[in-house]
Amino acid sequence: MQLEFSLKVDGPDPGTQRPGGRTERIRTAVVAATRAELVAHGYAALTVERVAETAGVAKSTVYRRWRDTTGLLTEMLRELVKNEVPLPATGSIEEDLRELARGIFHVYADPVTRDMVLGLIAAAVHEPRAAQALHDFFHIRNVQAAESVQQAIERGQLPADTDPVEVIRALGAPLYYRLLVTHEPIDESIAEHAALAALAAARAGVHRIR
Amino acid sequence: MQLEFSLKVDGPDPGTQRPGGRTERIRTAVVAATRAELVAHGYAALTVERVAETAGVAKSTVYRRWRDTTGLLTEMLRELVKNEVPLPATGSIEEDLRELARGIFHVYADPVTRDMVLGLIAAAVHEPRAAQALHDFFHIRNVQAAESVQQAIERGQLPADTDPVEVIRALGAPLYYRLLVTHEPIDESIAEHAALAALAAARAGVHRIR
Repeated sequence: MQLEFSLKVDGPDPGTQRPGGRTERIRTAVVAATRAELVAHGYAALTVERVAETAGVAKSTVYRRWRDTTGLLTEMLRELVKNEVPLPATGSIEEDLRELARGIFHVYADPVTRDMVLGLIAAAVHEPRAAQALHDFFHIRNVQAAESVQQAIERGQLPADTDPVEVIRALGAPLYYRLLVTHEPIDESIAEHAALAALAAARAGVHRIR
Repeated sequence: MQLEFSLKVDGPDPGTQRPGGRTERIRTAVVAATRAELVAHGYAALTVERVAETAGVAKSTVYRRWRDTTGLLTEMLRELVKNEVPLPATGSIEEDLRELARGIFHVYADPVTRDMVLGLIAAAVHEPRAAQALHDFFHIRNVQAAESVQQAIERGQLPADTDPVEVIRALGAPLYYRLLVTHEPIDESIAEHAALAALAAARAGVHRIR
């Protein structure tokens, strides 16, 4: 429920008002085309024109709703994560964070998705539009995932001045560090370790609002 | 002292036995040429031949001592970090970790160095030789930096089964996460926060050897 709400308020019209309607069919086709183009040709070849053609949608429609490649990438990332990394709400902050971290690991356990997302992250080092898409996507996603931390704060299980988004950043960072920087392997246990470290630092009052 | 030792045992002959001698002059010229080539043309154009030519050193010498671009990059990264991120030994684990994290931040505060290193990290997503260089460099560097954590364990300031390298990974990861993934800014206070979070998790016994 929360994800749908955020998509509505934060993004270009995703057509969720009429699931199964024409708006939603266009969105689905455009997201699939963006992903297919990235997998086949990488970020360097990604254009609104190619996505429109692959999706069988008028260019003007794609421009109007997503504006540029940043808009297309942000929408594609949201869809990817909505389907593959559901937001947990187990009632236990430790379980929620473990599950979230395992979900991130599983995105990168699939070689096609891994190459696509890491390729986008690589492109973003040089391409401001790709960087903007990552920034926008992770901003929205990390705020959504932080809801679980917020609830733990409200239950009195974490210090009242904990910064919920910082806990989420801390949970994801060690996985990306290994994937991108040290090129060390990741697995479920490393993901869970990242979750527990984020939680321990939060409990110690380090991840407080500054 | 420890760094010199590690360079001797782990790497291709760095010529440290005769500082100021011909071996060391060649090494210095090759490191400078590798860096200059990367800054000017990026990883895609980096070859042993170009580095040898820029350095004014025989190709055969560069091949014999560094083998390929992986060897050149690993050596260049070591030199960069040896000069710009000294290993602290203040006697306080908290101060050491803060200083180390600030040192990482300062590498990326310089736009030329930042573009060069992030460009290399981006290239490594697609280029196994660049990935190997990062892996080799960070392995050596993180083991060296972990010496400070090891000493804190021996002083009884951290749990006896703490994994020293994991503490160092945890310290660096949040900075790279912002630089590469979320494209959020970094500063000294974010670096110190990363150090304190790594330390808090270590104190809580999360960064233990598994």
